[in-house]
Amino acid sequence: MENQWIVGVDLGGTTTKLAFVNTNGEIAHKWEIHTDNSDEGLNITTNIAKAIDEKLVELGISKKDLLGIGMGAPGPVNYEKGVIINAVNLGWKDHYPLKERLETETALLVMIENDANCAALGEMWNGAGKGAKNLVCVTLGTGVGGGVIANGDIVRGINGAAGEIGHITAIPSGGAQCNCGKTGCLETITSATGIVRIAKEELVKNGTNGFLAEKLAENGTISAKDVFDAARNNDTLASKVVDEVAFHLGFVLANIANTLNPELIVLGGGVSRAGTILLNQVKEKFTKFAFSPVKESTDIALATLGNDAGVIGAAWLIKNHKKI
Amino acid sequence: MENQWIVGVDLGGTTTKLAFVNTNGEIAHKWEIHTDNSDEGLNITTNIAKAIDEKLVELGISKKDLLGIGMGAPGPVNYEKGVIINAVNLGWKDHYPLKERLETETALLVMIENDANCAALGEMWNGAGKGAKNLVCVTLGTGVGGGVIANGDIVRGINGAAGEIGHITAIPSGGAQCNCGKTGCLETITSATGIVRIAKEELVKNGTNGFLAEKLAENGTISAKDVFDAARNNDTLASKVVDEVAFHLGFVLANIANTLNPELIVLGGGVSRAGTILLNQVKEKFTKFAFSPVKESTDIALATLGNDAGVIGAAWLIKNHKKI
Repeated sequence: MENQWIVGVDLGGTTTKLAFVNTNGEIAHKWEIHTDNSDEGLNITTNIAKAIDEKLVELGISKKDLLGIGMGAPGPVNYEKGVIINAVNLGWKDHYPLKERLETETALLVMIENDANCAALGEMWNGAGKGAKNLVCVTLGTGVGGGVIANGDIVRGINGAAGEIGHITAIPSGGAQCNCGKTGCLETITSATGIVRIAKEELVKNGTNGFLAEKLAENGTISAKDVFDAARNNDTLASKVVDEVAFHLGFVLANIANTLNPELIVLGGGVSRAGTILLNQVKEKFTKFAFSPVKESTDIALATLGNDAGVIGAAWLIKNHKKI
Repeated sequence: MENQWIVGVDLGGTTTKLAFVNTNGEIAHKWEIHTDNSDEGLNITTNIAKAIDEKLVELGISKKDLLGIGMGAPGPVNYEKGVIINAVNLGWKDHYPLKERLETETALLVMIENDANCAALGEMWNGAGKGAKNLVCVTLGTGVGGGVIANGDIVRGINGAAGEIGHITAIPSGGAQCNCGKTGCLETITSATGIVRIAKEELVKNGTNGFLAEKLAENGTISAKDVFDAARNNDTLASKVVDEVAFHLGFVLANIANTLNPELIVLGGGVSRAGTILLNQVKEKFTKFAFSPVKESTDIALATLGNDAGVIGAAWLIKNHKKI
């Protein structure tokens, strides 16, 4: 298998990440192209096929050394049919036959999956969860997404909506309004947006001075990073916000673990770059809410693959399908 | 497969249920024996072997028509090793080699599993969840247990503690004390014991008259059934208790569904016999807490197999293992 490669593709609204991944889940070559979503996204698959062909020439690799293309795409995916159910940002209308189109363009096997699930599979294959057969990944970014792996495979659910960890209700009554229409969703608290919202509310209530009040006066806004930076310097208001974020995240993660008892819960996404200050507090709250045998066996760790998780997890789809 | 049978065994602390189950998950013959847990549970497997032999003679069936024995046992199970980790009620000490002992006694293939998981597998195979590959079962009895099925197989987790739905925290702060050491567990609210506790607390606060106050004066106690009976007759206090129980159950089930998006959540156990008054209210609360695509696709239903779920699910273990 030394000279065989899987192409991993992580399709985003503005950028498409590509990589040649070996059968051990290691990236040999990676690059990016612009996502051209004009003309109802008609050029997307053509551009990916062209990018792969050019890279083969550049590296002097023969197309027959490619085992297939695994691809992560935003939005709900019908995994079995290889269809994107809808992806407004890409210009694709209802039920776009992505697998079929890309197979026609490249003459290679194509498998597709939701991008959050790909990130989870990447961390399972060659990241923080290396070797774990039961794994939950939570992506704390502008929003909050997730991927659930049980018995070594992704859990998709009956409507492809499994892993919607951002829309788990963390506050049963009186939580903030979520974009999804509900209130009190985890996303309203632990996304970058949620953290900033809570910090600003605290500033209105209590914060006439301190680091965050200064930042806000200086820049007209604050970021989630500002909140963690301030908490790291023992700023009272920021510490209170981090404590609140960790409380609700610990609560939700413990309840997921009480249901699934995964080996590991992996925290990824921009907010997770806060590092140990977040991780340690989440672990502490998790302990409070986890059933004893779960507390002893389910660990929480930071993601290790960063932005590469998506292409590596996408490549895993081919490895898994071909039973390599 | 017409004349082939799987023996399903559901081992309880006082009674052992047995059944001959066909390869479609239908019970042909069922009976019970006393569980003899004297002498450190040494007679349990011998008695099961003897009971099967006697039944074969009685029915004129040859032992070679038996495909194997699937068995559900209380407490944590190491499924792969076929070992019961501990089962104090049965007299078995640490890591009792149940599979090995019963295979020696019967000369048949034996597969074992936790009893709550067997009940879930039974409902999946031939009960409320017939054909569903993603299914969550919740048993509302004296305590609250559960079983999670994803991608057509049981989710056990890294420490065998998956499906501990009774110990999901339903009330993040200020909930009642649970036997497990935590507070606010679902079990403290939606078990028969929990429902009675809440009703009694309401009676102390508000209930000098009404159906439940009368029952309590008459019998010195009330049951969960009394609460549902009273609520069905529009008793104000009982309706308030049912509303509270349904609220927390709907909250927890919606969050499980936001994580796993199962086709169906099945409610079983004694409390579920309350029927539509419970089911309808839980569905209503579920709707409030479920993410929109989950709400549209995950259904909630009452269990249909009753006490037979355990033996049918136990038999499934053999069907699954032999890939019949």
